[in-house]
Amino acid sequence: MTPSQRIPEERRPIGALLAPDILSLLEESPSQIAAETEELHPADLADVAEAMPFEQVPVFLAALPRERAADVLEYLDEELRARVLEAMTAEQAAALVTEMNPDERADVLEELDEDRAEEIVEEMPDVARRETEELRKYDPDSAGGLMTTQYVSVEANTSVEEALRRVRVIARSEKREAMHAVYTTDNQGRLAGVLSLRELLAAPEGAALAEVAWTEPKSVSPNADREEVAGVISNYDLVVVPVVSESGHLMGVITVDDVIDAIQEEQTEDVQKFGGMQALDEPYMQIGIFTMMKKRAGWLSILLVSEMMTTSVMQHFDAELSAVKVLALFVPLVVSSGGNSGSQATSLITRAMALREVTVADWWRVALRELPSGILLGVILGVIGIARIALWQSMGWYEYGSDAHSWEQVALTVGCSLVGIVAFGSLAGSMLPFLLRRVGFDPASASAPLVATLVDVTGLSIYFGVAWLILLR
Amino acid sequence: MTPSQRIPEERRPIGALLAPDILSLLEESPSQIAAETEELHPADLADVAEAMPFEQVPVFLAALPRERAADVLEYLDEELRARVLEAMTAEQAAALVTEMNPDERADVLEELDEDRAEEIVEEMPDVARRETEELRKYDPDSAGGLMTTQYVSVEANTSVEEALRRVRVIARSEKREAMHAVYTTDNQGRLAGVLSLRELLAAPEGAALAEVAWTEPKSVSPNADREEVAGVISNYDLVVVPVVSESGHLMGVITVDDVIDAIQEEQTEDVQKFGGMQALDEPYMQIGIFTMMKKRAGWLSILLVSEMMTTSVMQHFDAELSAVKVLALFVPLVVSSGGNSGSQATSLITRAMALREVTVADWWRVALRELPSGILLGVILGVIGIARIALWQSMGWYEYGSDAHSWEQVALTVGCSLVGIVAFGSLAGSMLPFLLRRVGFDPASASAPLVATLVDVTGLSIYFGVAWLILLR
Repeated sequence: MTPSQRIPEERRPIGALLAPDILSLLEESPSQIAAETEELHPADLADVAEAMPFEQVPVFLAALPRERAADVLEYLDEELRARVLEAMTAEQAAALVTEMNPDERADVLEELDEDRAEEIVEEMPDVARRETEELRKYDPDSAGGLMTTQYVSVEANTSVEEALRRVRVIARSEKREAMHAVYTTDNQGRLAGVLSLRELLAAPEGAALAEVAWTEPKSVSPNADREEVAGVISNYDLVVVPVVSESGHLMGVITVDDVIDAIQEEQTEDVQKFGGMQALDEPYMQIGIFTMMKKRAGWLSILLVSEMMTTSVMQHFDAELSAVKVLALFVPLVVSSGGNSGSQATSLITRAMALREVTVADWWRVALRELPSGILLGVILGVIGIARIALWQSMGWYEYGSDAHSWEQVALTVGCSLVGIVAFGSLAGSMLPFLLRRVGFDPASASAPLVATLVDVTGLSIYFGVAWLILLR
Repeated sequence: MTPSQRIPEERRPIGALLAPDILSLLEESPSQIAAETEELHPADLADVAEAMPFEQVPVFLAALPRERAADVLEYLDEELRARVLEAMTAEQAAALVTEMNPDERADVLEELDEDRAEEIVEEMPDVARRETEELRKYDPDSAGGLMTTQYVSVEANTSVEEALRRVRVIARSEKREAMHAVYTTDNQGRLAGVLSLRELLAAPEGAALAEVAWTEPKSVSPNADREEVAGVISNYDLVVVPVVSESGHLMGVITVDDVIDAIQEEQTEDVQKFGGMQALDEPYMQIGIFTMMKKRAGWLSILLVSEMMTTSVMQHFDAELSAVKVLALFVPLVVSSGGNSGSQATSLITRAMALREVTVADWWRVALRELPSGILLGVILGVIGIARIALWQSMGWYEYGSDAHSWEQVALTVGCSLVGIVAFGSLAGSMLPFLLRRVGFDPASASAPLVATLVDVTGLSIYFGVAWLILLR
């Protein structure tokens, strides 16, 4: 273990580093590939494959022992994996995919087009085919889609020694899924208890599992979405969570590594939505420009059309704008402040909702926090705004007064508008996620641009309303 | 396992449900508390404690066996935990904290004020005190701060049987940290290999660990930040990652549950920053209004002062505004479109950087994607903008023409400005995170409001520039 093997801040270029050596070995003596790469982590071998010319990838996989090739496939970039599986015969692909864990199999097939996936499933051995078809019924983002059907379960009256013996048999079998817990079932085959591998090892010899297992294990239903699964896993610090049917039967288990991936994806989606676009399904650098357009243009157009309301508001206050020309100067300033405070409030609340810190029922508690916060923030900004106008005026940089009104009136208009707009922005920004959830949308759709747009229209009305009161009445 | 025990979509109110029963039991026969709550997960007991009146919490903890109370403390809300430990004597607190895992001990003490933490550490038994003092040297967000010093390591020439025997001894000892892997060391005590508990069970009897362990285990340095640790864990699907010193010695291990918490916290910070504020350190509902003010007012004020540039730009184009009064009507519309497209681009790039999909060196590749995307998006929005003006004009809802210019010129000005502003917004929004990282800031500080503000000022200049070319020249 040398320091250079530690992962540097940027993604380690291990693939690019090793690929040339492995490529030349592949040409000269492909039979040595397996031995030479034996100690490398499959994630690193996947990096190597990603750094190769595409035609070489199937050759490289063919040079590895089949289960090793399946491991590499598991870590391969999704798009490349689909292309590799398309390039093989259905038999070759089925042989590789069969070596994967059932949950990975279902995920991989999900990425191919339906016909190709069917062809590959057809070629699988019976047991693997049935397992795979069972899992493919579930939405890939649900617990059923995330679970694997490889786990250890024994009847609750089994002895500790017998359970340990069975664990060792399964651990030595070809099934390579990590094993963290042993589940116990009652005489109806329903999930009754759970015991970590460590607890099994610690259990006194001669005891029955029923005496040492934890009863009432935390579980999820196969239809639970991945956020819910992630919530259970992180709440109870689990490494694996069982998926249990309505009738209480164990259907599979979800391991923490799949949940981490799910959390990361979910967060990426939330960030992209908050930025005001549809979530991308692929990494930024891999997505085609027209898919990108589709994901971005829709929301931008909706926002533009909504923002057109500001033009209508401005037209409505035509007379005021003509009477007090300096009003136009502060339009971007006052409306953007509302958008900014709204964006803060929205990011706070959508995140608090995602973490379940705040539920729909808390809306009024949030409102009671945001309104005073917003007023206070507005007062701070209002004072800064007035100071700005006073400074420009007193330095003679601009003349805000006219025959019809004094510069102090203009400053007061801007200051008071900021209080109203920032308070409104904070309140509206915090309530929008609740409203969206209430009407059945994802609260994470409450994006910064959406809040800014909503607040812009109201903000302008507040601004011209205050102006009318102070300057024009 | 009944369906009702599954976790519902909103955070399950198990604490509030059980608290009354447990409170009355606490009053009537506290000696039964331990037996009655034996099967409950400590996370659920922590929920129960959170639903109690504060004075009852230490009484409740005292009624539990000490190691059970320590588990509950581990899951307790941070603020409540600090209050509970403040309310106890230093001896009582030390007795409880000593029962926790070393990494949790350090985290818990971190939340107390320095003097109190010292008092508690003083009261601990020697071994626990030294372990704890060692860990407290590290930044709590670094690998050193996340790691626990409880792990199993044996010399590489140990036999499988002997290792298994040792694992069983440790598993039966009072140390309760989950155990997922066994580490092997060379004759200098440096980390040499790793073997999962499952692999140890699967290993052939009689073999030495050196023959079956994986060499070159993935590891992190004690100074690695939590994002890096999360990256290694999720990249290699690990459940536990070793922390290794410069000299190659094993210092501790980080388990995946601590990393999930770290990922969630990191993500919360990023979302809050993207919303345009300083990250909060506590859940939204628990933070005081003045702390909240401090975290939000700073950025809002900076944004307001920056946005004042728009007023200066508007003042600069005074003559144009007076000559073509309708120009003012579209100011919010055109500038907000730039902010929206910028916000999309920024959210895409900050997230791609957080996931290491894009590095600083990729800036020009990103620019080459964003510029054409931005132009295309701008054309789409420009056409919509022109259509809006044409519609209003042809329906007779507003008169955009005047003696000096036709309505078509106004429409063309708005359309062309949108192309320029949206293209500029996309480019600026995507480049800002690179710029921030370049000058040493966190790219996640590139917030939607910051981008909107930057783009507003330039957007106005583009708008008036186009207007000058089309309408005024």
